[in-house]
Formats: sequence, structure tokens, C-alpha cells
Amino acid sequence: ESNALNALDKSKIARTSPYTVGKFLTRLPVDDRRVVLRLLNIEGVAEVLSEMDSEDAAEVIEAMRQARAVKVLEALDPDDSADIVGDMEEANQHRLLNDVNPERAETVRTLISYPEDSAGGIMTTDVATVPKEFTVRQTVDHLHTLHDEFEHIYYVYVIDKNGHLLGTVSMRDLVMAKTNDIIGDIMHTELRGVLNVLTDQEDVTLVMAQHNFHALPVVDDDNRLLGMITDDDVIDIIQQEATEDFQKAMGAGGDESLNDPIAESVRRRSPWLLVNLLSAFMAGGVISLFEEQISHLTILAVCMPIVASLGGNAGGQTLAIVIRTLALGDFEDQDARRVLIREATKACLSGIIVGLIAALAVGILGHHWDVSAVIFVAMIISMSYAGLAGALIPITLRKLKLDPAQSSQMFLTASTDIVGFAVFLGLGSWVLL
Amino acid sequence: ESNALNALDKSKIARTSPYTVGKFLTRLPVDDRRVVLRLLNIEGVAEVLSEMDSEDAAEVIEAMRQARAVKVLEALDPDDSADIVGDMEEANQHRLLNDVNPERAETVRTLISYPEDSAGGIMTTDVATVPKEFTVRQTVDHLHTLHDEFEHIYYVYVIDKNGHLLGTVSMRDLVMAKTNDIIGDIMHTELRGVLNVLTDQEDVTLVMAQHNFHALPVVDDDNRLLGMITDDDVIDIIQQEATEDFQKAMGAGGDESLNDPIAESVRRRSPWLLVNLLSAFMAGGVISLFEEQISHLTILAVCMPIVASLGGNAGGQTLAIVIRTLALGDFEDQDARRVLIREATKACLSGIIVGLIAALAVGILGHHWDVSAVIFVAMIISMSYAGLAGALIPITLRKLKLDPAQSSQMFLTASTDIVGFAVFLGLGSWVLL
Repeated sequence: ESNALNALDKSKIARTSPYTVGKFLTRLPVDDRRVVLRLLNIEGVAEVLSEMDSEDAAEVIEAMRQARAVKVLEALDPDDSADIVGDMEEANQHRLLNDVNPERAETVRTLISYPEDSAGGIMTTDVATVPKEFTVRQTVDHLHTLHDEFEHIYYVYVIDKNGHLLGTVSMRDLVMAKTNDIIGDIMHTELRGVLNVLTDQEDVTLVMAQHNFHALPVVDDDNRLLGMITDDDVIDIIQQEATEDFQKAMGAGGDESLNDPIAESVRRRSPWLLVNLLSAFMAGGVISLFEEQISHLTILAVCMPIVASLGGNAGGQTLAIVIRTLALGDFEDQDARRVLIREATKACLSGIIVGLIAALAVGILGHHWDVSAVIFVAMIISMSYAGLAGALIPITLRKLKLDPAQSSQMFLTASTDIVGFAVFLGLGSWVLL
Repeated sequence: ESNALNALDKSKIARTSPYTVGKFLTRLPVDDRRVVLRLLNIEGVAEVLSEMDSEDAAEVIEAMRQARAVKVLEALDPDDSADIVGDMEEANQHRLLNDVNPERAETVRTLISYPEDSAGGIMTTDVATVPKEFTVRQTVDHLHTLHDEFEHIYYVYVIDKNGHLLGTVSMRDLVMAKTNDIIGDIMHTELRGVLNVLTDQEDVTLVMAQHNFHALPVVDDDNRLLGMITDDDVIDIIQQEATEDFQKAMGAGGDESLNDPIAESVRRRSPWLLVNLLSAFMAGGVISLFEEQISHLTILAVCMPIVASLGGNAGGQTLAIVIRTLALGDFEDQDARRVLIREATKACLSGIIVGLIAALAVGILGHHWDVSAVIFVAMIISMSYAGLAGALIPITLRKLKLDPAQSSQMFLTASTDIVGFAVFLGLGSWVLL
């Protein structure tokens, strides 16, 4: 691999988008990463790091000489540098920030003090601000003094002497205004979508999706402007949250990736498999209550997984929809009762259809029409339960202020297995023996 | 409910955000929707409809008098009106478009001719364009002539006489430039992230996430500018794609919502449950091969679902990560072999840990140390298989140009059930009897 890397040259790397270089780096061992990064100048390194996972980027910076690391950190956007520093060992954080220019170091220290998944943890502090007394011309002159990181800025925020947010002016407003217009006269003061610094990132994405703004201002409890969140940050967060929901629901790590070290993945997944083992033993315990009956009538053992499997999958259909509805903020607490009833009804109707076909198949294939009748009834009951459970589990987890997605698929199949076995074997023993 | 609606007044509705009114409307019967919408003026109705699902919005418009429907359609953004018209009955489309002003009707007809999930199906045609000979002042004057829908526009696109895209100028560039500067001199011509009109919407989201632009231009095969896609559209699509992936993986409809009519949900979910029924019968078939052995040794029936359940869940952990990796565009075809081996290894190691604990528990609880040994080995085999299958199923579906998410959780548990039962019962019959 290193040989191939030696063939790389500066011009090739420079022509590749920082995003692609970042993706490529993530998959290299630490030593090879250094070989690649040596081909880039400070700004180039900063661009690449800003496209990488902050954990990976932190590793890269920790492996650099202090002087270069400091320069790279200063070349990054404040929010990116804070994300990266936040993922370093505490000792390395202090060592590095001592050499970074004091203003930036202070900003980074403030930013990493906010929870990583709050508005404060995501926002950038590179915000263009002006007093409301400025003219459009003064504002434009001020924008000229700001450095390149402000390139993608769309709004100028209007603040008073104490930093309180008074209004916003968009670049378009500046284009459309006359140069002598006063900012206070043209600014928008009906501010929608202002975020508190401690707002959870999932709520940030919902607010951003609701208002079609390119950036939202972030303020403290006293309405003092602290930073802003742009919609390209939000796009990354939405992807990340969607990944988390799906992976956690299935019992994997929320931010686990295919390239994580094998030992790390096993360590993260095993606890949930052990929980699953416990629940599987409970299901086994239910079956063991009917060992006597099974030895007399082995078709019970043949059919019981059919009932359990359909229950698990019918519940999973509901589960997925409920988790996404919760994630999109489209669920109100007062809906709970209605949703539970409707989902149980849907699963019950599916149970009638599927149960009927299952019963016919067992009757025709096995000539056990009595078993058919038991399957039919057991399937309706266990699938109705599954629909109820598929809605109840995430709703309850949320009510308990837990993550509604966390391993909910495992909890679901645990309970549908237990109910499926109990209903089918109980009914079967009673009717057939 | 209608009584409560009558108490609503115009001022209350006007103070509520269009997004919230839209959410509220979605949950009302069609007649009540009309009561609410009658309180709004044409622009208000248009704003609310643009926040609703296009299907729901189409229903609302189809229930309006023709004259009002036409006015509302003309007040909507072209992309929104096309989405809504696209969801109407064909007869209603023609009837409505005949009365809409010809230019808009033409735009809508063009837009609905693109596939709904392509760049053409998402883009807006409200694009500000100028020739490269314009000065900044002429450009600003031109922007003044454009109507309000252009409010959120961030880029002006520079085109030649035949509509070919030459470059872009951001609002910020206009602010920073002098009024006599020539657009051709200040425009950016290194255009990254230009989308072909037929690009799939999932790829659109990846391109948008990669380049931090607020809007991407959409062109035809000859590089003629057709429209643009803004990042607030992309945010909605990303949410929609994430919902689709998760819900489809679990065998529900990709765009199914909790409020869909019960019969509709049952109709969409049942086919997958019937596929599941077939696979469950195959698993039952495997068990029926061992009926004799089960009648002699019922502990086999007790333990077999434990092995199957752990397999299903271990495979699900891998499945979720692979589906998300595919969705985020982070998977290269040449990775397949490596991913399969690694995921099988992870699941195998989990199998050793969980299998050991399961074996100990069965030994201690049931004093069946021979069954313990069988469980231990069966669990390692079936979980290794599950890890492999969890990666192989979505990767294969994608290779076949099918949706890698579609019902993959069902295919997975079907196969892990069959393998789990076969391995455990086969091994158990051989060792224990």
C-alpha cells in the first residue's frame, strides 16, 4: 500500500476533492495518512480534515508535530476545530490549545463546553454581525474585512451593544437595498427559528426543515447571539441521526461503521445480544412448559416458529413507521392511544389474511385441520399483539426519556416470540390434547 | 370536530405557521379541510399546500372550485405546483392546466414529465439568470424585477444565448463587487456539483452533502440550465429517503405513515407478510424433518428458537450498518469481499461469547451438558452465517439493481431461522441420539 502512496503526487491530490481525500484517508493506517497529508499545504490539510469524522481527524492531528497541528487548527473553521479538539485526549487538548492563538483557543474552549449534540456543539461562531445604526454601505465595507471562511454566509445578524440579537439581513436584502439605507430599517425583526444554545440537535433539524432558511441564529437564554447553524451542517446531522435510529433499533452502535475495528464492533454489539439471549431463554422457558405436549404432538414444534416469525415481522412493520414518525417530530403524546389501537387493528387484519392462508396450507399439506384452526386463531392474537407492541415499545421508551430506537427491534421480537409461543402452544395443548 | 373548527377565526389561522396548519389539515377529513382553507387567502392556501404532502395537497385542490384551484396553482412555486399536479388524476390534470396561464402550464407539464425521484422531479425552475455581459448594476436591476418567490435565492446563474450554463455568481459576490464590474469577470466558472436532470434523488443528496453549496444547478445533456435544487429541498428528501430505507427494510411501505387508512396499510404490508409466511413454512419444513428426534428429546424444541433468535438479531446488526453505508454512498463494489469476511468474523466472535454463556446456562439450569456443547457449536455457526447474510442480502439486492433495503430484514430472518434450525437440530440429532 505504501508503494502505491509514494506514486501519489501533489498535483493529483490537489485535483481531488477534499471530501474524497478525506474518505480515502479514513481507510488508511495512521502512518500512511501522514504520507498523504505531507503532500498538502496547511489549508489543504484543514479542508480535508473538515470533511472527515472528527474522531478520525483528531487522530490525524494528534499524530502531527505540535507546530503543524497548531497551524492546521487555526486554519480550520472554529466549529470544526472545536469538534476535532473535543475528540482528543484531555492532555492533548491542553497542550495544543496553549499554543493556538488565544482568541481561537478561547472560542474552542467555549464551544467544547457545550454538549456535542446540542445547537452549541454544532454551531459556528464565524458570524457576520453589525449594529442597527450601520448603513448598507458600512455593512458591505465590514463584510469586506471578514476573511474567507465567511464565503458561504447568507445572513448578516444585527445586534445591540450587548450582543442581543435584534434582526437579520440577508445578502439578497443587501443586494436589493440602496447603499444609504439604514440596516435597522431594512432588517427582518420577526425572527422565526431562533435556536437556544442547548437545543438538542434532533430538534435543530426539525426547526431547519420547518423554516426554509439557509442558516439559523443560536442565542443564549438572554437572547445574546452566540453563533449560527447553516443548513449544510444540518444535512450532515440528519444523515447521522437517521443512521443512528436504524442501527440502534437493530441493536448495533449508533455511530458504528463497517470499517470499525472488529474487536470494537463485537464489544459494542455483544451487550445487546446478551440481552437478546436472556429474552430467548424466557421464550425457551415458555416452550419448556409444554414439553410433554410437544412430545405427543410434534407438529406443535413445527408450527410454533411460524406463528412467532409472523408476529415478529408484523410488529417490525409498525415499529419502523413509529420510530420514523417520532424522529420526524410528527407524533404528539395525545396520539398514543389512537396509534396503538390503529396499529393493533392493522396487524389484526393482516393476521386474519395471513392466518387464513397459513391455516389452509397446514390443512392441505398436513391434513391437520384441527391444527389449522389453532394456527388461525393463534396468528390473529399474536399478530394483533405484535402490532400493539411495535407501537408501544418505542412510544414507551420515549415516554421514559430513553431513545425510542434503542434496540427496540430486539425488545419487540423477544416479546412477540414469547407471546407467539405461549398463545399457540397454550391453545394447541388445550384444543388438541 | 366541525364545531371546534367553526370557532377558528382568520386571525388565529394567520398567526399559525403554514407548516403547522398543513400538519393539522392532513389529519382532517376532506370537508373539514375546506372549512379551514376558506379562512385563508390564495397566497395563504398556497403556503399551506406547499408544506403538505403533495398527495394530500392534490386531494385538497381537487376538492376546490376550478377558479380557486387555478389561482392557488398559479400562486405556488412551479416545483410545488408540478408535484401536486403530478399526484392528481390525469383527467383533473388536463382540466386544471387548461385554465392555468399558458407559461406556467407549460412549465408544469415539463416538470411532471421527469421521474418524480430525479433531479428534474425535485428542481425548481424559478432560477435567476443573466448573460455574462451584464454589469453588477444591471444584474441587481434584473433581480428587482423578479417576484417574491425568488426571496431565498442565493445564486444567480450566468448563461449564454442558448441557455448553456457558463458560471455562477452568489449574492455575496454581488454585495462584494463594484456596481460596474462585469458578471463574466466575477463569475465562478469552476462549477462543481452540476446535476444532470435525470440524476437520481439519492445521488442528489450525496452531491449536496459533499459540496457545501446552498443550491445546485440542474442541466440537460447539452449543459443547458433547466433549474436548480436548493438545500432545503434536499433536507426533505434526505428525511424521506431515511424513512423509506428503514420502513422498507422492515417490510412496511416506504412512504407509509401512521395516519394512512387502515385498509391501505394492510394492503401494502400483507404481500411481504405472505412472503414471510412462505419462508416460515420452509423453516417449519426443516423442523418437520426432525419430528422423530424432537419427540424423543423435547429439549431440542425448547432450545431451537434460542439459536434462531440470536442469529436473526446478530444478522440484523450487520444489516442495518450495511444498508446505511450503501445509502450514504460510502460503499465501493470492490469492498464487498472484505466487508463480508469482516462481518462474518464479527458475528462469529459474538457467537463464541454468547454461545459460551448460553451453553453454561443450559448446562447449569438443565444439567444437559451434551445439549450445551451442541448449542455452543450451533450458535457459532448460525451467528457467523447471520453476519454473512446480513451483509450479503443488501449487497446482492443492490447488485441486482433492486432496492437494497426492500424487506431485507424479512429475507434475513427467514434465512437465519432456516439455518439456525437446520444446524441446531441436525447437530443435536447426530450428537445426542
